[in-house]
Amino acid sequence: MQTNRLHLVKLGSAIVDDEERLALNLKKFLSLPDPKILLHGGGKIASNLSSRLGLTPKFVDGRRITDQATLDIAIMVYAGLINKKIVSDLNAMNGSALGLCGADLKLIKSKKRPVVSIDFGQVGDVQEVNIEVFIQLFSLGWQPILSAITWSSEDGLLNTNADSLGGKLASAFAPHFEVSLQLISENSGVLMNLSDPSSLIAEINFLKYDELKNQGVISGGMIPKLDSAFQSLEQGIKEIWIAGEVVTSDEQHYGTKICRL
Amino acid sequence: MQTNRLHLVKLGSAIVDDEERLALNLKKFLSLPDPKILLHGGGKIASNLSSRLGLTPKFVDGRRITDQATLDIAIMVYAGLINKKIVSDLNAMNGSALGLCGADLKLIKSKKRPVVSIDFGQVGDVQEVNIEVFIQLFSLGWQPILSAITWSSEDGLLNTNADSLGGKLASAFAPHFEVSLQLISENSGVLMNLSDPSSLIAEINFLKYDELKNQGVISGGMIPKLDSAFQSLEQGIKEIWIAGEVVTSDEQHYGTKICRL
Repeated sequence: MQTNRLHLVKLGSAIVDDEERLALNLKKFLSLPDPKILLHGGGKIASNLSSRLGLTPKFVDGRRITDQATLDIAIMVYAGLINKKIVSDLNAMNGSALGLCGADLKLIKSKKRPVVSIDFGQVGDVQEVNIEVFIQLFSLGWQPILSAITWSSEDGLLNTNADSLGGKLASAFAPHFEVSLQLISENSGVLMNLSDPSSLIAEINFLKYDELKNQGVISGGMIPKLDSAFQSLEQGIKEIWIAGEVVTSDEQHYGTKICRL
Repeated sequence: MQTNRLHLVKLGSAIVDDEERLALNLKKFLSLPDPKILLHGGGKIASNLSSRLGLTPKFVDGRRITDQATLDIAIMVYAGLINKKIVSDLNAMNGSALGLCGADLKLIKSKKRPVVSIDFGQVGDVQEVNIEVFIQLFSLGWQPILSAITWSSEDGLLNTNADSLGGKLASAFAPHFEVSLQLISENSGVLMNLSDPSSLIAEINFLKYDELKNQGVISGGMIPKLDSAFQSLEQGIKEIWIAGEVVTSDEQHYGTKICRL
């Protein structure tokens, strides 16, 4: 039976920063069937480098601004150091990993965010994902490893939020694949009881979410996170996981599976 | 008539550092027929970054040592900032550039230089070029843009001298292609008279080299450079250029063509 599933795994900063957890998650990522994509966040390395260079993060009305020096650091750390380290580790485990940013083969075109009330600087909002080229990479058996640096033919390299890029990629692939999006972070999933990590909800659909929200079980920061996940599911993504580790089996996992029905 | 020529262009640091010369050379590179590879050096950005971070270059017996911090900067600047900037610029000119280091798809395997009298640190000597994968990239019409970071499955990412990598790549491709290797730097070629830039020798073969060396016309630092070029030609490379700009035509150029006969 031929399945047309695409695994899209986003590794959050907390995983990237922790050598042991990174190694475990890369191993689990490789054990997923192809085609698959790994998208990684930044981690503390970029902010550490910024502060060592005496750059202070700039904020306007509480929103972070990406000036040219900050963008250069993002390119160096995300598209350079972290990306190539992950590729090197995966290939030492016999992967066929290929490190990429949005500029390579024009994979992810974005548009510099227009100045309305705030000038966010060198920030790109994703416009177009080059599905055809990704499919060529898959057909060669290669695993794209993506940093969240996107590209515009007018403005060059741009910085993009990795979570938002994950959502955009998942939606863009949805007409072509059964997309399973995994958001891996220190947050291991949706808990029935915030103070009890063992109270993880294995699976949640919209009806159950509504019910738990009305009962006050799900509250606070989890609400916008789940609202955004259910919105993505409406765009045709098959399933979304919020998990502390890459999920390699529906039966045994440490996370919450979010699905429509 | 099908030609099986491969253009391998190495852009030296002085070109990478100069925005205007870089743009001109990228444009000329794109105008060369496929297949082609661009290999780039480092430039001042890496040493500037090192000194801003308070790292001082380490030397033992006059030889530079690559410790882990220096390697991290090389990865960030060469495989990150410079590589992705070149890819972004080429693709804005409608290229199909793909930024790579030796770890990607296990393209360039190296071996950490063994400690004999000096421990050079994280330095890799090229062992194997993955010709098959390069040919797959060519057949898709893509242009590999290479930084001189190589890879070993045991030791991960390693720093390699870009000129020596250029020579190794050229020799590895020689059995499969008519390789034209272009070494582009501030040095525009072999001069009859060092103080007269217009005295450029358009073409030199071994007999002419021998003659000019005996006459004392060619002397000093040009001798090891040309000796190394003639050695490479012995390994089957079709031609080598030393030029100040990418050479797009045999008739009109600013450089010296080095050939066997």
